[in-house]
Amino acid sequence: MMVENVHFDLRWTTPFQLGFKLVSVNVSDIYAMGGRPSFMLLNLGAPVNMNVKCFNRLFDGIEEALRTYKLSLIGGDLSSSKKIVLSATVTGHAKKFITRKGAKAGDRIYVTGCLGDSSCGLELLKKIKKPVEIEKRSKNKHGLKWNFALPLVKRHLMPLARDPEKFIGKATSMIDISDGLIIDLSRLCKESRAGAKIYSDRLPISDELREASEYLGIPPLVFALGGGEDYELLFTAPASRKIDAVCIGEITRSGINILDKKGRKIKLGMKGYQHFV
Amino acid sequence: MMVENVHFDLRWTTPFQLGFKLVSVNVSDIYAMGGRPSFMLLNLGAPVNMNVKCFNRLFDGIEEALRTYKLSLIGGDLSSSKKIVLSATVTGHAKKFITRKGAKAGDRIYVTGCLGDSSCGLELLKKIKKPVEIEKRSKNKHGLKWNFALPLVKRHLMPLARDPEKFIGKATSMIDISDGLIIDLSRLCKESRAGAKIYSDRLPISDELREASEYLGIPPLVFALGGGEDYELLFTAPASRKIDAVCIGEITRSGINILDKKGRKIKLGMKGYQHFV
Repeated sequence: MMVENVHFDLRWTTPFQLGFKLVSVNVSDIYAMGGRPSFMLLNLGAPVNMNVKCFNRLFDGIEEALRTYKLSLIGGDLSSSKKIVLSATVTGHAKKFITRKGAKAGDRIYVTGCLGDSSCGLELLKKIKKPVEIEKRSKNKHGLKWNFALPLVKRHLMPLARDPEKFIGKATSMIDISDGLIIDLSRLCKESRAGAKIYSDRLPISDELREASEYLGIPPLVFALGGGEDYELLFTAPASRKIDAVCIGEITRSGINILDKKGRKIKLGMKGYQHFV
Repeated sequence: MMVENVHFDLRWTTPFQLGFKLVSVNVSDIYAMGGRPSFMLLNLGAPVNMNVKCFNRLFDGIEEALRTYKLSLIGGDLSSSKKIVLSATVTGHAKKFITRKGAKAGDRIYVTGCLGDSSCGLELLKKIKKPVEIEKRSKNKHGLKWNFALPLVKRHLMPLARDPEKFIGKATSMIDISDGLIIDLSRLCKESRAGAKIYSDRLPISDELREASEYLGIPPLVFALGGGEDYELLFTAPASRKIDAVCIGEITRSGINILDKKGRKIKLGMKGYQHFV
Protein backbone atom coordinates (compact mmCIF):
# COMPACT_ATOMS: atom_id res chain seq x y z
CA MET A 1 0.00 0.00 0.00
CA MET A 2 1.29 3.44 -0.90
CA VAL A 3 -0.32 6.38 0.86
CA GLU A 4 0.15 10.02 -0.17
CA ASN A 5 2.36 11.93 2.28
CA VAL A 6 3.43 8.65 3.96
CA HIS A 7 5.06 6.76 1.09
CA PHE A 8 5.26 9.51 -1.48
CA ASP A 9 5.10 13.26 -1.83
CA LEU A 10 3.69 14.76 -5.01
CA ARG A 11 5.82 17.85 -4.45
CA TRP A 12 8.72 15.88 -5.91
CA THR A 13 7.18 12.76 -7.44
CA THR A 14 5.48 12.76 -10.82
CA PRO A 15 2.38 10.56 -11.27
CA PHE A 16 4.33 8.57 -13.88
CA GLN A 17 7.10 7.78 -11.38
CA LEU A 18 4.54 6.90 -8.73
CA GLY A 19 2.83 4.39 -11.02
CA PHE A 20 6.13 2.81 -12.00
CA LYS A 21 7.33 2.55 -8.41
CA LEU A 22 4.07 1.02 -7.21
CA VAL A 23 4.58 -1.93 -9.54
CA SER A 24 8.31 -2.29 -8.75
CA VAL A 25 7.73 -2.36 -5.02
CA ASN A 26 5.19 -5.16 -5.35
CA VAL A 27 7.25 -7.13 -7.86
CA SER A 28 10.17 -6.86 -5.44
CA ASP A 29 8.11 -8.77 -2.86
CA ILE A 30 7.50 -11.59 -5.33
CA TYR A 31 11.18 -11.71 -6.35
CA ALA A 32 12.15 -11.75 -2.67
CA MET A 33 10.45 -15.13 -2.31
CA GLY A 34 12.00 -16.51 -5.45
CA GLY A 35 8.80 -16.09 -7.46
CA ARG A 36 8.09 -15.02 -11.03
CA PRO A 37 5.45 -12.26 -11.10
CA SER A 38 2.40 -12.95 -13.24
CA PHE A 39 -0.70 -10.84 -12.52
CA MET A 40 -1.49 -7.57 -10.81
CA LEU A 41 -4.67 -6.22 -9.21
CA LEU A 42 -4.90 -2.52 -8.42
CA ASN A 43 -7.07 -0.76 -5.86
CA LEU A 44 -6.85 2.99 -6.34
CA GLY A 45 -8.28 5.67 -4.11
CA ALA A 46 -8.07 9.15 -5.60
CA PRO A 47 -9.46 12.60 -4.82
CA VAL A 48 -12.61 13.55 -6.71
CA ASN A 49 -10.82 16.57 -8.21
CA MET A 50 -7.74 14.68 -9.45
CA ASN A 51 -7.23 15.83 -13.03
CA VAL A 52 -7.40 13.51 -16.01
CA LYS A 53 -3.83 14.24 -17.14
CA CYS A 54 -2.46 13.23 -13.75
CA PHE A 55 -4.59 10.08 -13.84
CA ASN A 56 -3.36 9.17 -17.32
CA ARG A 57 0.29 9.73 -16.41
CA LEU A 58 -0.13 7.52 -13.34
CA PHE A 59 -1.41 4.74 -15.58
CA ASP A 60 1.36 5.38 -18.15
CA GLY A 61 3.87 4.73 -15.36
CA ILE A 62 2.03 1.60 -14.29
CA GLU A 63 1.95 0.34 -17.89
CA GLU A 64 5.66 1.04 -18.40
CA ALA A 65 6.44 -1.08 -15.33
CA LEU A 66 4.00 -3.81 -16.35
CA ARG A 67 5.90 -4.10 -19.65
CA THR A 68 9.25 -4.07 -17.82
CA TYR A 69 8.30 -7.01 -15.62
CA LYS A 70 6.06 -8.77 -18.19
CA LEU A 71 3.07 -8.50 -15.87
CA SER A 72 -0.64 -8.25 -16.69
CA LEU A 73 -3.07 -5.98 -14.86
CA ILE A 74 -6.18 -8.13 -14.52
CA GLY A 75 -8.53 -6.14 -12.32
CA GLY A 76 -9.08 -3.98 -9.31
CA ASP A 77 -11.19 -1.28 -7.86
CA LEU A 78 -11.53 2.49 -8.02
CA SER A 79 -12.67 4.66 -5.15
CA SER A 80 -12.72 8.28 -4.08
CA SER A 81 -10.53 9.26 -1.13
CA LYS A 82 -9.12 12.48 0.25
CA LYS A 83 -5.52 11.51 -0.47
CA ILE A 84 -4.18 9.18 -3.16
CA VAL A 85 -3.96 5.59 -1.92
CA LEU A 86 -2.54 2.85 -4.11
CA SER A 87 -2.89 -0.76 -3.13
CA ALA A 88 -1.57 -3.34 -5.55
CA THR A 89 -1.57 -7.10 -5.23
CA VAL A 90 0.85 -9.01 -7.43
CA THR A 91 0.59 -12.77 -7.80
CA GLY A 92 3.49 -14.97 -8.82
CA HIS A 93 4.59 -18.55 -8.95
CA ALA A 94 7.74 -20.30 -7.85
CA LYS A 95 9.11 -23.79 -8.33
CA LYS A 96 10.84 -23.51 -4.96
CA PHE A 97 10.01 -20.49 -2.89
CA ILE A 98 12.45 -18.93 -0.49
CA THR A 99 11.43 -17.51 2.88
CA ARG A 100 13.21 -15.54 5.59
CA LYS A 101 13.58 -18.70 7.62
CA GLY A 102 16.38 -20.78 6.16
CA ALA A 103 19.58 -18.92 7.15
CA LYS A 104 22.09 -21.05 9.10
CA ALA A 105 25.14 -19.95 11.15
CA GLY A 106 28.08 -19.87 8.76
CA ASP A 107 26.03 -18.84 5.69
CA ARG A 108 27.31 -15.82 3.83
CA ILE A 109 25.11 -12.71 3.55
CA TYR A 110 24.73 -11.04 0.15
CA VAL A 111 23.10 -7.99 -1.39
CA THR A 112 22.29 -7.48 -5.07
CA GLY A 113 23.45 -3.87 -5.36
CA CYS A 114 24.46 -0.57 -3.79
CA LEU A 115 22.80 0.41 -0.53
CA GLY A 116 21.57 3.83 0.58
CA ASP A 117 21.14 5.37 -2.88
CA SER A 118 17.37 5.61 -2.58
CA SER A 119 17.24 7.25 0.84
CA CYS A 120 20.00 9.64 -0.16
CA GLY A 121 18.04 10.42 -3.33
CA LEU A 122 15.06 11.27 -1.14
CA GLU A 123 17.18 13.70 0.91
CA LEU A 124 18.24 15.40 -2.31
CA LEU A 125 14.62 15.62 -3.48
CA LYS A 126 13.68 17.30 -0.22
CA LYS A 127 16.21 19.99 -1.11
CA ILE A 128 15.21 20.23 -4.77
CA LYS A 129 11.56 20.47 -3.65
CA LYS A 130 10.05 19.93 -7.07
CA PRO A 131 9.46 16.99 -9.40
CA VAL A 132 12.47 15.74 -11.32
CA GLU A 133 11.05 14.38 -14.54
CA ILE A 134 13.79 11.84 -15.12
CA GLU A 135 11.59 9.98 -17.58
CA LYS A 136 11.75 13.13 -19.71
CA ARG A 137 15.44 13.70 -18.95
CA SER A 138 14.80 17.08 -17.31
CA LYS A 139 17.68 18.45 -15.25
CA ASN A 140 17.09 20.44 -12.11
CA LYS A 141 19.84 22.75 -10.99
CA HIS A 142 21.20 22.51 -7.49
CA GLY A 143 24.45 22.38 -5.54
CA LEU A 144 25.47 18.83 -6.44
CA LYS A 145 26.59 17.89 -9.95
CA TRP A 146 23.65 16.41 -11.81
CA ASN A 147 25.50 13.28 -12.96
CA PHE A 148 25.97 12.43 -9.26
CA ALA A 149 22.45 13.30 -8.17
CA LEU A 150 20.57 11.62 -11.02
CA PRO A 151 21.25 7.93 -10.21
CA LEU A 152 20.34 8.52 -6.54
CA VAL A 153 17.15 10.38 -7.30
CA LYS A 154 16.25 7.82 -9.94
CA ARG A 155 16.78 4.92 -7.54
CA HIS A 156 14.32 6.58 -5.18
CA LEU A 157 11.69 7.58 -7.72
CA MET A 158 11.75 4.66 -10.13
CA PRO A 159 13.47 1.68 -8.52
CA LEU A 160 13.91 -1.48 -10.54
CA ALA A 161 13.18 -4.66 -8.63
CA ARG A 162 16.05 -7.18 -8.62
CA ASP A 163 15.46 -10.52 -10.29
CA PRO A 164 17.02 -13.31 -8.20
CA GLU A 165 17.01 -15.86 -11.02
CA LYS A 166 20.77 -16.39 -11.24
CA PHE A 167 21.27 -17.34 -7.58
CA ILE A 168 17.83 -18.66 -6.73
CA GLY A 169 18.95 -22.29 -6.53
CA LYS A 170 21.62 -21.44 -3.97
CA ALA A 171 19.87 -19.06 -1.56
CA THR A 172 18.88 -20.36 1.87
CA SER A 173 16.84 -17.30 2.90
CA MET A 174 15.89 -14.00 1.31
CA ILE A 175 14.15 -10.65 1.92
CA ASP A 176 14.02 -7.39 0.01
CA ILE A 177 15.38 -4.28 1.68
CA SER A 178 12.43 -1.93 1.94
CA ASP A 179 12.81 -0.48 5.43
CA GLY A 180 16.63 -0.36 5.61
CA LEU A 181 19.37 -2.99 5.86
CA ILE A 182 19.37 -3.19 9.67
CA ILE A 183 15.61 -3.63 10.03
CA ASP A 184 15.26 -6.12 7.20
CA LEU A 185 18.34 -8.08 8.25
CA SER A 186 16.87 -8.23 11.77
CA ARG A 187 13.63 -9.62 10.33
CA LEU A 188 15.48 -12.29 8.39
CA CYS A 189 17.58 -13.22 11.45
CA LYS A 190 14.54 -13.33 13.72
CA GLU A 191 12.70 -15.71 11.40
CA SER A 192 15.81 -17.85 10.97
CA ARG A 193 16.52 -17.77 14.74
CA ALA A 194 20.04 -16.63 14.01
CA GLY A 195 22.30 -13.60 14.25
CA ALA A 196 24.55 -11.79 11.81
CA LYS A 197 27.75 -9.87 11.53
CA ILE A 198 28.09 -7.26 8.82
CA TYR A 199 31.47 -5.94 7.64
CA SER A 200 30.70 -2.27 7.12
CA ASP A 201 33.69 -1.78 4.80
CA ARG A 202 32.24 -4.39 2.43
CA LEU A 203 28.89 -2.63 2.04
CA PRO A 204 28.54 -1.62 -1.60
CA ILE A 205 28.38 2.16 -1.61
CA SER A 206 28.18 4.01 -4.90
CA ASP A 207 30.48 6.87 -5.85
CA GLU A 208 27.37 8.99 -6.22
CA LEU A 209 26.34 8.26 -2.63
CA ARG A 210 29.83 9.20 -1.39
CA GLU A 211 29.70 12.52 -3.25
CA ALA A 212 26.15 13.32 -2.16
CA SER A 213 26.91 12.33 1.45
CA GLU A 214 29.68 14.88 1.55
CA TYR A 215 27.41 17.50 0.02
CA LEU A 216 24.66 16.73 2.56
CA GLY A 217 27.03 16.32 5.52
CA ILE A 218 25.61 12.88 6.38
CA PRO A 219 27.94 9.82 6.51
CA PRO A 220 27.26 7.27 3.73
CA LEU A 221 26.80 4.50 6.34
CA VAL A 222 23.73 6.27 7.71
CA PHE A 223 22.06 5.79 4.33
CA ALA A 224 23.47 2.33 3.67
CA LEU A 225 22.53 0.84 7.05
CA GLY A 226 19.42 2.77 7.99
CA GLY A 227 17.95 4.19 4.80
CA GLY A 228 14.81 2.59 3.44
CA GLU A 229 13.53 1.68 0.00
CA ASP A 230 16.71 0.18 -1.40
CA TYR A 231 14.70 -2.63 -3.00
CA GLU A 232 17.90 -4.64 -3.26
CA LEU A 233 17.61 -8.29 -2.32
CA LEU A 234 19.32 -9.41 0.88
CA PHE A 235 19.93 -13.15 0.92
CA THR A 236 22.03 -15.88 2.43
CA ALA A 237 23.80 -18.87 0.90
CA PRO A 238 26.19 -21.54 2.17
CA ALA A 239 29.83 -20.40 2.21
CA SER A 240 30.68 -23.19 -0.24
CA ARG A 241 28.48 -21.81 -3.05
CA LYS A 242 29.82 -19.39 -5.63
CA ILE A 243 27.51 -16.38 -5.76
CA ASP A 244 27.46 -13.48 -8.21
CA ALA A 245 26.50 -10.79 -5.67
CA VAL A 246 28.24 -8.70 -3.00
CA CYS A 247 29.08 -10.55 0.22
CA ILE A 248 28.60 -8.19 3.16
CA GLY A 249 28.86 -10.51 6.14
CA GLU A 250 27.86 -13.82 7.62
CA ILE A 251 25.17 -15.44 9.69
CA THR A 252 26.03 -16.12 13.33
CA ARG A 253 24.22 -17.86 16.18
CA SER A 254 22.75 -14.67 17.69
CA GLY A 255 22.97 -10.89 17.89
CA ILE A 256 23.39 -8.44 15.05
CA ASN A 257 26.76 -6.74 14.89
CA ILE A 258 28.09 -4.20 12.46
CA LEU A 259 31.87 -4.27 12.40
CA ASP A 260 34.27 -1.58 11.24
CA LYS A 261 37.49 -2.16 9.23
CA LYS A 262 39.35 -3.29 12.35
CA GLY A 263 36.60 -5.65 13.49
CA ARG A 264 35.26 -3.35 16.22
CA LYS A 265 31.49 -3.13 16.79
CA ILE A 266 29.83 0.03 15.49
CA LYS A 267 27.09 1.49 17.69
CA LEU A 268 24.02 2.40 15.73
CA GLY A 269 21.88 5.46 16.12
CA MET A 270 19.65 4.81 13.14
CA LYS A 271 17.08 2.14 12.60
CA GLY A 272 15.46 2.59 9.19
CA TYR A 273 11.80 3.35 8.60
CA GLN A 274 9.13 2.05 10.91
CA HIS A 275 5.43 2.84 10.52
CA PHE A 276 4.17 2.47 14.07
CA VAL A 277 6.78 3.88 16.47
CA MET B 1 -10.99 -0.63 -1.10
CA MET B 2 -12.78 0.84 1.88
CA VAL B 3 -11.82 4.37 2.87
CA GLU B 4 -12.83 6.03 6.14
CA ASN B 5 -15.51 8.69 5.62
CA VAL B 6 -16.12 7.48 2.05
CA HIS B 7 -17.19 3.87 2.57
CA PHE B 8 -17.69 3.87 6.30
CA ASP B 9 -18.17 6.20 9.22
CA LEU B 10 -16.82 5.18 12.60
CA ARG B 11 -19.48 7.31 14.25
CA TRP B 12 -21.92 4.44 13.65
CA THR B 13 -19.75 1.51 12.59
CA THR B 14 -17.84 -0.63 15.09
CA PRO B 15 -14.38 -1.91 14.08
CA PHE B 16 -15.77 -5.47 14.32
CA GLN B 17 -18.52 -4.67 11.79
CA LEU B 18 -16.03 -2.95 9.53
CA GLY B 19 -13.78 -6.00 9.47
CA PHE B 20 -16.69 -8.33 8.77
CA LYS B 21 -18.05 -6.15 5.98
CA LEU B 22 -14.66 -5.78 4.31
CA VAL B 23 -14.49 -9.53 3.78
CA SER B 24 -18.15 -9.85 2.70
CA VAL B 25 -17.82 -7.13 0.10
CA ASN B 26 -14.82 -8.84 -1.47
CA VAL B 27 -16.32 -12.33 -1.30
CA SER B 28 -19.41 -10.90 -3.02
CA ASP B 29 -17.23 -10.00 -6.02
CA ILE B 30 -15.96 -13.58 -6.26
CA TYR B 31 -19.48 -15.02 -5.92
CA ALA B 32 -20.66 -12.56 -8.60
CA MET B 33 -18.43 -14.33 -11.12
CA GLY B 34 -19.52 -17.77 -10.02
CA GLY B 35 -16.30 -18.37 -8.07
CA ARG B 36 -15.55 -20.09 -4.77
CA PRO B 37 -13.43 -17.82 -2.54
CA SER B 38 -10.17 -19.31 -1.31
CA PHE B 39 -7.54 -16.83 -0.05
CA MET B 40 -7.44 -13.24 1.12
CA LEU B 41 -4.67 -10.64 1.22
CA LEU B 42 -5.13 -7.54 3.32
CA ASN B 43 -3.50 -4.14 2.97
CA LEU B 44 -4.30 -1.99 5.95
CA GLY B 45 -3.53 1.69 6.41
CA ALA B 46 -4.22 2.94 9.91
CA PRO B 47 -3.50 6.08 11.93
CA VAL B 48 -0.43 5.89 14.17
CA ASN B 49 -2.61 6.57 17.23
CA MET B 50 -5.24 3.88 16.53
CA ASN B 51 -5.70 2.03 19.81
CA VAL B 52 -4.96 -1.65 20.23
CA LYS B 53 -8.50 -2.56 21.28
CA CYS B 54 -9.91 -1.05 18.08
CA PHE B 55 -7.26 -2.89 16.06
CA ASN B 56 -8.08 -6.21 17.75
CA ARG B 57 -11.83 -5.80 17.23
CA LEU B 58 -11.24 -5.03 13.55
CA PHE B 59 -9.35 -8.30 13.21
CA ASP B 60 -12.01 -10.16 15.25
CA GLY B 61 -14.56 -9.05 12.65
CA ILE B 62 -12.28 -10.10 9.81
CA GLU B 63 -11.73 -13.50 11.43
CA GLU B 64 -15.46 -14.02 12.00
CA ALA B 65 -16.07 -13.40 8.29
CA LEU B 66 -13.13 -15.58 7.24
CA ARG B 67 -14.72 -18.45 9.18
CA THR B 68 -18.14 -17.69 7.67
CA TYR B 69 -16.83 -17.95 4.11
CA LYS B 70 -14.17 -20.62 4.81
CA LEU B 71 -11.43 -18.27 3.64
CA SER B 72 -7.77 -18.05 4.70
CA LEU B 73 -5.90 -14.79 5.23
CA ILE B 74 -2.48 -15.48 3.70
CA GLY B 75 -0.67 -12.16 3.73
CA GLY B 76 -0.73 -8.45 3.23
CA ASP B 77 0.80 -5.21 4.29
CA LEU B 78 0.49 -2.71 7.10
CA SER B 79 1.03 1.01 6.73
CA SER B 80 0.39 4.23 8.57
CA SER B 81 -2.13 6.63 7.06
CA LYS B 82 -4.19 9.56 8.30
CA LYS B 83 -7.51 7.79 7.84
CA ILE B 84 -8.24 4.06 7.95
CA VAL B 85 -7.92 2.47 4.51
CA LEU B 86 -8.68 -1.21 3.97
CA SER B 87 -7.79 -2.90 0.74
CA ALA B 88 -8.47 -6.61 0.49
CA THR B 89 -7.85 -8.93 -2.42
CA VAL B 90 -9.74 -12.21 -2.43
CA THR B 91 -8.81 -14.99 -4.83
CA GLY B 92 -11.19 -17.70 -5.91
CA HIS B 93 -11.63 -20.41 -8.45
CA ALA B 94 -14.51 -21.36 -10.74
CA LYS B 95 -15.19 -24.29 -13.01
CA LYS B 96 -17.17 -21.99 -15.28
CA PHE B 97 -17.01 -18.32 -14.50
CA ILE B 98 -19.84 -15.92 -15.25
CA THR B 99 -19.30 -12.39 -16.51
CA ARG B 100 -21.57 -9.41 -17.14
CA LYS B 101 -21.52 -10.17 -20.84
CA GLY B 102 -23.81 -13.11 -21.54
CA ALA B 103 -27.34 -11.67 -21.15
CA LYS B 104 -29.55 -12.13 -24.23
CA ALA B 105 -32.85 -10.44 -25.13
CA GLY B 106 -35.62 -12.59 -23.64
CA ASP B 107 -33.58 -13.73 -20.63
CA ARG B 108 -35.26 -13.23 -17.27
CA ILE B 109 -33.62 -10.96 -14.68
CA TYR B 110 -33.33 -12.19 -11.09
CA VAL B 111 -32.15 -10.95 -7.70
CA THR B 112 -31.22 -13.09 -4.71
CA GLY B 113 -32.98 -11.05 -2.03
CA CYS B 114 -34.64 -7.86 -0.86
CA LEU B 115 -33.39 -4.57 -2.28
CA GLY B 116 -32.87 -1.27 -0.52
CA ASP B 117 -32.48 -2.61 3.02
CA SER B 118 -28.83 -1.60 3.30
CA SER B 119 -29.21 1.99 2.10
CA CYS B 120 -32.29 2.44 4.27
CA GLY B 121 -30.29 1.02 7.20
CA LEU B 122 -27.65 3.67 6.51
CA GLU B 123 -30.29 6.43 6.65
CA LEU B 124 -31.42 5.09 10.02
CA LEU B 125 -27.84 5.01 11.29
CA LYS B 126 -27.41 8.64 10.28
CA LYS B 127 -30.31 9.41 12.63
CA ILE B 128 -29.11 7.12 15.42
CA LYS B 129 -25.64 8.69 15.09
CA LYS B 130 -23.82 6.13 17.22
CA PRO B 131 -22.58 2.58 16.79
CA VAL B 132 -25.19 -0.16 17.01
CA GLU B 133 -23.35 -3.14 18.39
CA ILE B 134 -25.56 -5.75 16.75
CA GLU B 135 -22.92 -8.38 17.29
CA LYS B 136 -23.46 -7.84 21.03
CA ARG B 137 -27.23 -7.52 20.61
CA SER B 138 -27.31 -3.95 21.91
CA LYS B 139 -30.52 -2.03 21.25
CA ASN B 140 -30.50 1.68 20.50
CA LYS B 141 -33.71 3.54 21.14
CA HIS B 142 -35.20 5.67 18.41
CA GLY B 143 -38.50 6.45 16.72
CA LEU B 144 -38.84 3.21 14.74
CA LYS B 145 -39.56 -0.12 16.43
CA TRP B 146 -36.28 -1.94 16.91
CA ASN B 147 -37.47 -5.20 15.33
CA PHE B 148 -38.03 -3.21 12.12
CA ALA B 149 -34.80 -1.24 12.27
CA LEU B 150 -32.47 -4.09 13.20
CA PRO B 151 -32.55 -6.13 9.94
CA LEU B 152 -32.00 -2.96 7.90
CA VAL B 153 -29.15 -1.69 10.01
CA LYS B 154 -27.62 -5.17 10.10
CA ARG B 155 -27.80 -5.51 6.30
CA HIS B 156 -25.84 -2.28 6.05
CA LEU B 157 -23.27 -2.97 8.76
CA MET B 158 -22.63 -6.69 8.34
CA PRO B 159 -23.92 -7.85 4.95
CA LEU B 160 -23.67 -11.52 4.07
CA ALA B 161 -22.53 -12.19 0.52
CA ARG B 162 -24.91 -14.37 -1.51
CA ASP B 163 -23.63 -17.73 -2.68
CA PRO B 164 -24.82 -18.41 -6.26
CA GLU B 165 -24.17 -22.15 -6.11
CA LYS B 166 -27.75 -23.29 -6.63
CA PHE B 167 -28.31 -21.41 -9.89
CA ILE B 168 -24.77 -21.11 -11.16
CA GLY B 169 -25.24 -23.62 -13.97
CA LYS B 170 -28.17 -21.67 -15.38
CA ALA B 171 -27.03 -18.02 -15.20
CA THR B 172 -26.06 -16.29 -18.46
CA SER B 173 -24.65 -13.14 -16.81
CA MET B 174 -24.20 -11.87 -13.28
CA ILE B 175 -23.13 -8.87 -11.17
CA ASP B 176 -23.44 -8.00 -7.51
CA ILE B 177 -25.42 -4.93 -6.57
CA SER B 178 -22.96 -2.65 -4.83
CA ASP B 179 -23.82 0.76 -6.26
CA GLY B 180 -27.60 0.33 -6.60
CA LEU B 181 -29.85 -1.74 -8.89
CA ILE B 182 -30.06 0.85 -11.68
CA ILE B 183 -26.31 1.44 -11.93
CA ASP B 184 -25.35 -2.21 -11.71
CA LEU B 185 -28.10 -3.32 -14.09
CA SER B 186 -26.85 -0.66 -16.53
CA ARG B 187 -23.34 -2.07 -16.26
CA LEU B 188 -24.56 -5.58 -16.97
CA CYS B 189 -26.66 -4.38 -19.93
CA LYS B 190 -23.80 -2.32 -21.35
CA GLU B 191 -21.42 -5.29 -21.26
CA SER B 192 -24.08 -7.57 -22.76
CA ARG B 193 -25.01 -4.94 -25.38
CA ALA B 194 -28.63 -5.29 -24.35
CA GLY B 195 -31.40 -3.43 -22.54
CA ALA B 196 -33.77 -4.33 -19.74
CA LYS B 197 -37.23 -3.76 -18.42
CA ILE B 198 -37.87 -3.99 -14.71
CA TYR B 199 -41.33 -4.51 -13.23
CA SER B 200 -41.17 -2.26 -10.18
CA ASP B 201 -44.03 -4.08 -8.45
CA ARG B 202 -42.02 -7.31 -8.54
CA LEU B 203 -39.00 -5.84 -6.74
CA PRO B 204 -38.60 -7.70 -3.46
CA ILE B 205 -39.11 -5.11 -0.73
CA SER B 206 -39.02 -6.18 2.90
CA ASP B 207 -41.72 -5.30 5.42
CA GLU B 208 -39.00 -3.61 7.43
CA LEU B 209 -38.11 -1.36 4.50
CA ARG B 210 -41.78 -0.42 4.03
CA GLU B 211 -42.10 0.52 7.70
CA ALA B 212 -38.84 2.44 7.79
CA SER B 213 -39.63 4.23 4.51
CA GLU B 214 -42.83 5.56 6.04
CA TYR B 215 -40.95 6.64 9.16
CA LEU B 216 -38.28 8.39 7.06
CA GLY B 217 -40.72 9.83 4.51
CA ILE B 218 -38.79 8.35 1.57
CA PRO B 219 -40.53 5.98 -0.89
CA PRO B 220 -39.24 2.36 -0.72
CA LEU B 221 -38.49 2.44 -4.47
CA VAL B 222 -35.87 5.13 -3.92
CA PHE B 223 -33.92 2.68 -1.77
CA ALA B 224 -34.67 -0.39 -3.89
CA LEU B 225 -33.70 1.17 -7.23
CA GLY B 226 -31.05 3.69 -6.26
CA GLY B 227 -29.66 2.61 -2.91
CA GLY B 228 -26.20 1.09 -2.84
CA GLU B 229 -24.54 -1.78 -1.00
CA ASP B 230 -27.32 -4.34 -1.34
CA TYR B 231 -24.74 -7.06 -2.07
CA GLU B 232 -27.52 -9.13 -3.58
CA LEU B 233 -26.65 -10.89 -6.82
CA LEU B 234 -28.33 -9.64 -9.99
CA PHE B 235 -28.28 -12.27 -12.73
CA THR B 236 -29.98 -13.38 -15.91
CA ALA B 237 -31.09 -16.82 -17.11
CA PRO B 238 -33.03 -18.12 -20.09
CA ALA B 239 -36.82 -17.94 -19.59
CA SER B 240 -37.00 -21.73 -19.97
CA ARG B 241 -34.90 -22.43 -16.84
CA LYS B 242 -36.48 -22.86 -13.41
CA ILE B 243 -34.72 -20.52 -11.00
CA ASP B 244 -35.02 -20.28 -7.23
CA ALA B 245 -34.73 -16.48 -6.99
CA VAL B 246 -36.96 -13.45 -7.50
CA CYS B 247 -37.68 -12.54 -11.13
CA ILE B 248 -37.82 -8.74 -11.46
CA GLY B 249 -37.87 -8.24 -15.22
CA GLU B 250 -36.39 -9.27 -18.52
CA ILE B 251 -33.60 -8.44 -20.90
CA THR B 252 -34.57 -6.44 -24.00
CA ARG B 253 -32.65 -5.27 -27.07
CA SER B 254 -31.89 -1.79 -25.75
CA GLY B 255 -32.77 0.88 -23.20
CA ILE B 256 -33.43 0.45 -19.50
CA ASN B 257 -37.01 0.94 -18.46
CA ILE B 258 -38.61 0.69 -15.06
CA LEU B 259 -42.32 -0.03 -15.38
CA ASP B 260 -45.08 0.56 -12.84
CA LYS B 261 -47.96 -1.84 -12.13
CA LYS B 262 -49.78 -0.68 -15.26
CA GLY B 263 -46.75 -1.01 -17.50
CA ARG B 264 -46.03 2.74 -17.66
CA LYS B 265 -42.42 3.93 -17.59
CA ILE B 266 -41.28 5.43 -14.31
CA LYS B 267 -38.97 8.44 -14.57
CA LEU B 268 -36.00 8.18 -12.30
CA GLY B 269 -34.43 10.89 -10.23
CA MET B 270 -31.97 8.69 -8.42
CA LYS B 271 -28.94 6.96 -9.72
CA GLY B 272 -27.24 5.09 -6.90
CA TYR B 273 -23.75 5.80 -5.62
CA GLN B 274 -21.03 7.01 -7.95
CA HIS B 275 -17.52 7.87 -6.82
CA PHE B 276 -16.45 10.37 -9.46
CA VAL B 277 -19.41 12.60 -10.34
